[in-house]
Amino acid sequence: MEIKEIQGGVCAPKGFKANGIHCGIRKNKAKRDFALIVSEVRAAAAGVYTSNLVKGAPVVVTKNNLTDGYAQAIICNSGNANTCNADGLEVANEMCRLVTEVGGIPASDVVVASTGVIGQKLDITPMRQHIGELWLGLGDAGEFAAEAIMTTDTVKKSVAVEFMLGGKICRIGAIAKGVGMVCPNMATNLIFITSDVAITSEMLQTALSEDVKTSFNMVSVDGDQSTNDTCCILANGLAGNQLISGKGSAFKSFCAALNYCTVKLSKMIAKDGEGATKLIECRVVGADRKCTAKAVAKSVIKSSLVKAAMFGEDANWGRVLCAIGYAGVKIDVNAVDVSFSSKSGEICVCKGGYGVDFSEEEAKTVLSQDEVTILINLNTGSSSATAWGCDLTYDYVKINGDYRT
Amino acid sequence: MEIKEIQGGVCAPKGFKANGIHCGIRKNKAKRDFALIVSEVRAAAAGVYTSNLVKGAPVVVTKNNLTDGYAQAIICNSGNANTCNADGLEVANEMCRLVTEVGGIPASDVVVASTGVIGQKLDITPMRQHIGELWLGLGDAGEFAAEAIMTTDTVKKSVAVEFMLGGKICRIGAIAKGVGMVCPNMATNLIFITSDVAITSEMLQTALSEDVKTSFNMVSVDGDQSTNDTCCILANGLAGNQLISGKGSAFKSFCAALNYCTVKLSKMIAKDGEGATKLIECRVVGADRKCTAKAVAKSVIKSSLVKAAMFGEDANWGRVLCAIGYAGVKIDVNAVDVSFSSKSGEICVCKGGYGVDFSEEEAKTVLSQDEVTILINLNTGSSSATAWGCDLTYDYVKINGDYRT
Repeated sequence: MEIKEIQGGVCAPKGFKANGIHCGIRKNKAKRDFALIVSEVRAAAAGVYTSNLVKGAPVVVTKNNLTDGYAQAIICNSGNANTCNADGLEVANEMCRLVTEVGGIPASDVVVASTGVIGQKLDITPMRQHIGELWLGLGDAGEFAAEAIMTTDTVKKSVAVEFMLGGKICRIGAIAKGVGMVCPNMATNLIFITSDVAITSEMLQTALSEDVKTSFNMVSVDGDQSTNDTCCILANGLAGNQLISGKGSAFKSFCAALNYCTVKLSKMIAKDGEGATKLIECRVVGADRKCTAKAVAKSVIKSSLVKAAMFGEDANWGRVLCAIGYAGVKIDVNAVDVSFSSKSGEICVCKGGYGVDFSEEEAKTVLSQDEVTILINLNTGSSSATAWGCDLTYDYVKINGDYRT
Repeated sequence: MEIKEIQGGVCAPKGFKANGIHCGIRKNKAKRDFALIVSEVRAAAAGVYTSNLVKGAPVVVTKNNLTDGYAQAIICNSGNANTCNADGLEVANEMCRLVTEVGGIPASDVVVASTGVIGQKLDITPMRQHIGELWLGLGDAGEFAAEAIMTTDTVKKSVAVEFMLGGKICRIGAIAKGVGMVCPNMATNLIFITSDVAITSEMLQTALSEDVKTSFNMVSVDGDQSTNDTCCILANGLAGNQLISGKGSAFKSFCAALNYCTVKLSKMIAKDGEGATKLIECRVVGADRKCTAKAVAKSVIKSSLVKAAMFGEDANWGRVLCAIGYAGVKIDVNAVDVSFSSKSGEICVCKGGYGVDFSEEEAKTVLSQDEVTILINLNTGSSSATAWGCDLTYDYVKINGDYRT
């Protein structure tokens, strides 16, 4: 099946409109902070959420609203996570009702999300004052929505693809935010996906739950798992394909197109990690089991020492071995090979658990690129996994040393 | 029982001599890199080691040498970890034999340790050339040994105490190194403990294994677990107390004195964490179970975002809640209280899972001290635990961006 990237983000699928404006939650008036995505018809909906026991109020409300498997709109603010607030649920529910007031969409068909500082009250007033403006501006403005959900993100994260199902053109669009507090366990930060595919709520949930295992759940920026992780998908059926209600070939095609979008966003999230100067990909092959490959890939991508070495463009592979060793899974240390690669080439630094001679200069050239792969062969099987992260830099410390003020 | 701090470090207990010199493993001639600690008689010995699957060769050799429960000397180099080297075991065994050559102590009674870069060959030559000088200089030089085991440590870590057992004066002395790759799972980095207490090898191992659970295993600098963690204790019996062979009151007294030393070193390790400007203590009380308290304390102390906020003296308590939430243990979020305290006072920032009004200025004053406590009351039981760590700073990144060159 051919998957073709197209323009339009979340507005690429038929029947979806979006908008993003500045309503005043953030002090910087140039920064949009209030987003809305709406489907012209009610859509099958599915979600995956943070497994942090401390959950943002919007996570609780969204989960509740999606129990029936349907939704029609997504409302989101940035600048405040609405988490650990006594009136959090009230405010999150009120955000849903704002959509009812301006658009007549039942509050129970609204996905609500918030992102920003934890533990500061979220005032509904600026949103109430600007919901009319937000609604009236709905159109082909997926980019505005992508911008409005950003916090310390430096780039907008948006993608859309087109593919065929039974002769019908289908589309998936998605936006994401997330640069810090990124170490998802169910999904990462905020991801909103739209599609015009006709699919049941059950199969949509199955597709999404499977998908995050190899996409967003394999991303780590700093090992801190957010309280507000929410990944939601709305599929409104307007593409006119035959309804996907089981695990046939149409379902597989849909999953492939979905994974194309989510992996692309995963890499964008990792590369835009707070303070990051480069995307680090850790690809583990030759594992005896999938879970071994995953655990090793995540352990390496999360190591502060590996991340700092990547920033310093230092081929300190001993730290990679070290992180493999404490991954908590059984591996044969004396079978492990490690290479670094980038568009400048590939260099093997460790064979069978021991160092090999290599040119430090050549290694520095490989590591100086803005996308670097750490390739690990466990040489004990045929399972593999890939995780994405970034380097650890002065700017990560700077950004997080005084985030609130 | 009174525990009195005394001078002398590892040489404080009767019958122990030590030395530390520069032999040439490090380029900087002003830095000692070769240490030796010797007991004049064979001593009961016990050890705890890294649980990293990638183990330094010295760890393997030391474990083997201590299987009979006795040792008489500790030899250690810094500047090279002798890990992931094809000839690692050979070199580690050779280091033990050097002690036999100059001092007649059987190689199987030698504890050997190495610390520094992973994956670079350790040349025995400089050690062979200087072992005579090291041996001849043995004396009351615990400070030289403490210096010789340092890597990026900025301060020597040494402690000694005196206490009474059945009318006899007993002593424990200890030195430690460890500032990065600190997240022990059995012990941390290198800790060498000496004592003149008479105790069986079995009880010594029991004491040490129990001790590390509340001391070194509760320290995290960067979440990276070293390949070379080794904590060894030698007790030579020269204090003349009645042999401790069971869990009576003398054993309890010994354990209390030992814990005094190990907790003091744990705090020194945390405070000297790479790039750190302050010691962070996380004290969890009111837990339903000990393991819950421990998991929460370690999760908070390891959070990059909490660590960066501490560096920025920013009372961003939402990050503390977040780290509690992903600790992987069951807690009641709506029962959690959080305070920050230091010698400047104590300030409550969260009650029952929600934020309370507090003065940001006052909080900044509390957090500006060089030792800060994060106090968490889970309010669901009576178990408690304490973990130690440090803030995350620009200098951590600087130190680790280019460690090898």
